[in-house]
Amino acid sequence: MRPGVGVAFTPRTPRVVAARRLQRRRDRDASGRFLAEGPQAVREALAVAGGVVELFYTAEAADRHAELVAAAGDRASPVTDEALAGLAETVQPQGLVAVCRQLDVALADVLACAPKLVTVCADIRDPGNAGTVLRTADAAGAGAVVFAGEAVDPYNGKAVRASAGSLFHVDVVREPDPAATVAALHRSGLRVLAADARGADDLDDLADAGDLAAPTAWLFGSEAHGLPAELAERADARVRVPIHGRAESLNLAAAAAICLYASARAQRGR
Amino acid sequence: MRPGVGVAFTPRTPRVVAARRLQRRRDRDASGRFLAEGPQAVREALAVAGGVVELFYTAEAADRHAELVAAAGDRASPVTDEALAGLAETVQPQGLVAVCRQLDVALADVLACAPKLVTVCADIRDPGNAGTVLRTADAAGAGAVVFAGEAVDPYNGKAVRASAGSLFHVDVVREPDPAATVAALHRSGLRVLAADARGADDLDDLADAGDLAAPTAWLFGSEAHGLPAELAERADARVRVPIHGRAESLNLAAAAAICLYASARAQRGR
Repeated sequence: MRPGVGVAFTPRTPRVVAARRLQRRRDRDASGRFLAEGPQAVREALAVAGGVVELFYTAEAADRHAELVAAAGDRASPVTDEALAGLAETVQPQGLVAVCRQLDVALADVLACAPKLVTVCADIRDPGNAGTVLRTADAAGAGAVVFAGEAVDPYNGKAVRASAGSLFHVDVVREPDPAATVAALHRSGLRVLAADARGADDLDDLADAGDLAAPTAWLFGSEAHGLPAELAERADARVRVPIHGRAESLNLAAAAAICLYASARAQRGR
Repeated sequence: MRPGVGVAFTPRTPRVVAARRLQRRRDRDASGRFLAEGPQAVREALAVAGGVVELFYTAEAADRHAELVAAAGDRASPVTDEALAGLAETVQPQGLVAVCRQLDVALADVLACAPKLVTVCADIRDPGNAGTVLRTADAAGAGAVVFAGEAVDPYNGKAVRASAGSLFHVDVVREPDPAATVAALHRSGLRVLAADARGADDLDDLADAGDLAAPTAWLFGSEAHGLPAELAERADARVRVPIHGRAESLNLAAAAAICLYASARAQRGR
């Protein structure tokens, strides 16, 4: 059937009902699937082999994003505007919501590729921050983001949106045990740096000393509590971003951006 | 009357009703006042001369944050838990909400102090981003943040919370005309750099060339549209943060953190 011509699914069509359940973490965890909405995310998801399980699109999207609907082939199904509104979490998803396969990679598989820059988020709770860190890590050239400990679900809708497509670019690892994660990073020869507002080492000092050029894993803690002490102690250094003004600290996403870009710069010999 | 002993105001007490209206921009603009909640923000507000107009506190806060209630002196009034819940926008304000005086400074007064680092946000719309940029600019040692054009209200409750106290540290300027802002920055000898994902100059190249050490004003555009072209053209350079991975761009707060910290580092001769 040509896209846009089929009988549009309603909010009560079983496949729409099943997809909508993926707004809940329990159903995402059980199915290994998640939702991505809007043309940018759908485009990135389609670029990943096996990434898109099905694509729901409205009549308007069939015209406006015909190439994406065509790329999804027989995975694409027309839906009513009402059905799409129920699947989407934003008011302007531009008529597209995809059911995607979760893309987790095992930490061992990531480390087997000898990445030069890895981001570890321990106990991060806010989905917007999780998505922003994914996006920033991608921009800084990090090969993987590890969500360790009691972390937010990176496939939460808000995290997916905040990642702006980077969820589909960077290897996503989920490791419940942060200490085991640090041990594995060490075994594979990565220098492990803990971002810590009260750390003994100043980021600029490390940069000046050439200490950021080695293959590095950065550890970031939760928004409210920072890194647990027992985890920070396992790092090779506890590094503070210098505070030149009167702020007590930086927020998680800003600190991650500064640390990851300092490593990216040093690793390129600058 | 000793703090904590007075008859607690209810949600219908006229002063509580008046304060609650400050949750709306219209009433903030008309009164030149705004709300700050929680012990951190209240502490910072009290440290600013004339910053706090009145402080509402619950019976629990009278014990837990006795030093803040005492510092507010006769500006402090006890309120019921219900009254405080109505004044607060978060679920855990820890029993404290202050009515504060807006702290805007004129751009001319800021420039008269010859600041080395100024942040300009043009048309920024998201209050959380506005607050995060304030916090990051403070941490990077910027003397002022200018909200130019059709910007969000920096005294919006979400912006105040995201600033984590930095709203009370950094000079806040509101200038409706972005072009006039850039002209004034130029006249006072600041180098004006536009953060632009498609800029001709790479941030790392500028750092290597020593071009970031001069007194600098950074221009950042809106989350959705970046800087308007006619504004970016007025800058001395259009600077891109290098993208090493596959992300299309960085979000506003991450880009601001990287650019401001690159300047802060260069201005300290490193």
